[in-house]
Amino acid sequence: MMTAAVTRALAELVVGFSAAELPASAEHAGRRTFVNVVGLAVGAAHHPAVELALRAVETLGTPADASVLGRAERLGVTHAPLLNGIAMHVEDFDDTHLRTVIHPGAPVVPAALAAAEWTNASGEDVLLATILGVEVALRVGNAMGPGHFDRGWHLTSTMGHLGAAAAGGRLIGLDVDQMIVALGIAATEAAGLTEALGTMTKSFHPGKAASDGVEAALLAAEGYTGPAAPLEGRRGLLAVAAPEPEAALALEGIGERWEIELNAFKPYACGIVSHPVIDAGQAFRDLVTDAREIDTVEARINPVVLDVMGVEDPQDGLQSKFSVYHCFAVGFLHGAGGPAQFSDATARDPDVVALRRKVRTITDPTTAKDAASVRVRTVAGDDHVHRVEHATGSASSPMSDAQLRDKFLLVTRPVLGADADRLHDVASSIGSLPDVAPVFAASLPDGRGDGDA
Amino acid sequence: MMTAAVTRALAELVVGFSAAELPASAEHAGRRTFVNVVGLAVGAAHHPAVELALRAVETLGTPADASVLGRAERLGVTHAPLLNGIAMHVEDFDDTHLRTVIHPGAPVVPAALAAAEWTNASGEDVLLATILGVEVALRVGNAMGPGHFDRGWHLTSTMGHLGAAAAGGRLIGLDVDQMIVALGIAATEAAGLTEALGTMTKSFHPGKAASDGVEAALLAAEGYTGPAAPLEGRRGLLAVAAPEPEAALALEGIGERWEIELNAFKPYACGIVSHPVIDAGQAFRDLVTDAREIDTVEARINPVVLDVMGVEDPQDGLQSKFSVYHCFAVGFLHGAGGPAQFSDATARDPDVVALRRKVRTITDPTTAKDAASVRVRTVAGDDHVHRVEHATGSASSPMSDAQLRDKFLLVTRPVLGADADRLHDVASSIGSLPDVAPVFAASLPDGRGDGDA
Repeated sequence: MMTAAVTRALAELVVGFSAAELPASAEHAGRRTFVNVVGLAVGAAHHPAVELALRAVETLGTPADASVLGRAERLGVTHAPLLNGIAMHVEDFDDTHLRTVIHPGAPVVPAALAAAEWTNASGEDVLLATILGVEVALRVGNAMGPGHFDRGWHLTSTMGHLGAAAAGGRLIGLDVDQMIVALGIAATEAAGLTEALGTMTKSFHPGKAASDGVEAALLAAEGYTGPAAPLEGRRGLLAVAAPEPEAALALEGIGERWEIELNAFKPYACGIVSHPVIDAGQAFRDLVTDAREIDTVEARINPVVLDVMGVEDPQDGLQSKFSVYHCFAVGFLHGAGGPAQFSDATARDPDVVALRRKVRTITDPTTAKDAASVRVRTVAGDDHVHRVEHATGSASSPMSDAQLRDKFLLVTRPVLGADADRLHDVASSIGSLPDVAPVFAASLPDGRGDGDA
Repeated sequence: MMTAAVTRALAELVVGFSAAELPASAEHAGRRTFVNVVGLAVGAAHHPAVELALRAVETLGTPADASVLGRAERLGVTHAPLLNGIAMHVEDFDDTHLRTVIHPGAPVVPAALAAAEWTNASGEDVLLATILGVEVALRVGNAMGPGHFDRGWHLTSTMGHLGAAAAGGRLIGLDVDQMIVALGIAATEAAGLTEALGTMTKSFHPGKAASDGVEAALLAAEGYTGPAAPLEGRRGLLAVAAPEPEAALALEGIGERWEIELNAFKPYACGIVSHPVIDAGQAFRDLVTDAREIDTVEARINPVVLDVMGVEDPQDGLQSKFSVYHCFAVGFLHGAGGPAQFSDATARDPDVVALRRKVRTITDPTTAKDAASVRVRTVAGDDHVHRVEHATGSASSPMSDAQLRDKFLLVTRPVLGADADRLHDVASSIGSLPDVAPVFAASLPDGRGDGDA
């Protein structure tokens, strides 16, 4: 049996690390992670997946202790994170740690927000708890290795449980031994199947992870007992759910190198491997005036793109998020790839349908996953070629703060109108807020608090 | 990809099966499962693992919609099952499906009870929902194969989630498509590490499974969507969490052969493989008058017994549950193996300590797991040998209804006194009760409802 070093070392980091020790680069990455999911939650606050889960929670009965972004309802400390986590993830538009394909913001930030309301924590503490929770999720994700994902586990749920327990436990004030228990309870709840992709159950994953994480922290605070080595033990999560775990990766450079700095942001609301094709579609707007001039489109892409994004004739918005053909069409026709480009209406728009039917793909293993080479032949017989080396939002071409702000406004303006800018400013100042109340207040449309856009 | 036949067929059974179709043998097995865990929950209603979880739930805030066996507190529809599930499992004394090592009563019965209070279901419906929920848990457990357990998954949690969703969903009145969603949400929450054995987190497993199952059923009732083939899909639970699943085993003889009839009951509150040694200890009470006459004890056992039960000098009650040496001592000295024989006081009793130090073991792969051969040499130089072919409670020697009743009274009398008999009678009549209220009422000490023994 391995020693308990991994869980204990993570618990010591989460409990003992102080904001003064945090490098500016990690603080900046944490703020980008926080602000991005706050915007997404507001944009999707009335998505059907959120509305149905809210009805279930209200049916169950829940006290009014914690807030939901973009909505006036107040819910219990384990129920508000469920709703916020669903809303942050449901548009497939949130942050991504590319090495592990974890979307850490959606499980971790809701746990931090609810625990912060519970304990009246400062904005600085919330930001630090978010960073530490994300760090736990991503580091253990690295240790699980690619086989964990390959088996079919959805790491945003499995690793999200750990990150949420860490963030919640930090704000609740657990000591190291209690934090080990919280991580142990979270580890023993760490499930989530990628079979759920394309259904509401996928966005349920980070919501439930956030909820379970807060609950685990509360149980640990009461004195619950758990295994000493829930991650690295003989029957711990690493051995049980990963075929080739490398426990040491969880601790590599811990407290010095910050994994959250590798958290990336999607410019487009769909599977990340089709992003270079949307970039290319946008680039052709300068080369071809009208879609009717296009005879054929030939996209050379990595084979994995078709594995994930191969839907040829999507029937609704959700399916269109998994169609590389649709992605080219909206990139060219709309010059964008936000939620509006993956709505039911856009998926059925005759102009979009006509253009995406002209798209052919050639898979080529030598084309990188963040690259594409697209050739457009016009009706007149001209050939145009555009090559994307690194898609926008990839590790080699990260979104700038200004681009992230534009994305934030894109998803929040339909709900908040001109107040979207204010929410962006408030959320961005999280590190200096006295508590999280201003974020929730600014997330409500017109300050009316009735939850309608 | 496999077809969606497995999940759909299970959903059709759970939704469509009627009490009139149920053979008497399955009904009898269901009643034994139900009554046994009701007694255990009352006996452990004030165990520290229950008290701490209750404090966490009360801290969270919870409405007064559902009852806790043996306690006056009323909790929310997802919180009461958490408490009842913990109480039923915490003494390691509940029912066991030997093929899969699932303890199905503790996750399934609490879900059925809470859903029944919620929907005002009849006792007959509760019993049928329990049987159908157990059937789903055990059948999918068979399909997962032994590799699921060998990897380190605690099936009482993983399969318990499915059984709880089935039982809860049946009582809530889901249709087949909704039941598939409920099973899908439960499948994507199906975690639980055996690393947690020996800690409170182990008994948390069935409690959380029961809670999650009810929640999944409520979400499905609201119209939540989930994967079509959560069990047998390419990234479904069978493929993801079992190395060699056999999906067809889930449907073998479905609706005709009832797996719940193979659910067995422990006569002793400790690991099942040491049960033959407790039987032998009791048998020697007729052969040797006083422990001081015993010079040495030599127990010939299957090697797996030492793997699980090899603690030579247990320091507390929990450790003594994993000591075959202690098991012989209490079998001989107390003629019993209930919770009192695995208390902290008994573990440290000098007479028990002295006798268990005289016990030696010989492991022998030709000795069956439910058998033992024990030789006692007396100080006077006499040899006595007793051989147990099939331990009490094993598949070949199941506990009779009378023995189960004695066990029920053993665990409930310390709490209920003479009222224990009445609770046994009420719980045993579950199939003809108008609702579950009489079971909860009879579970309270002295009818005072203050939760004290």
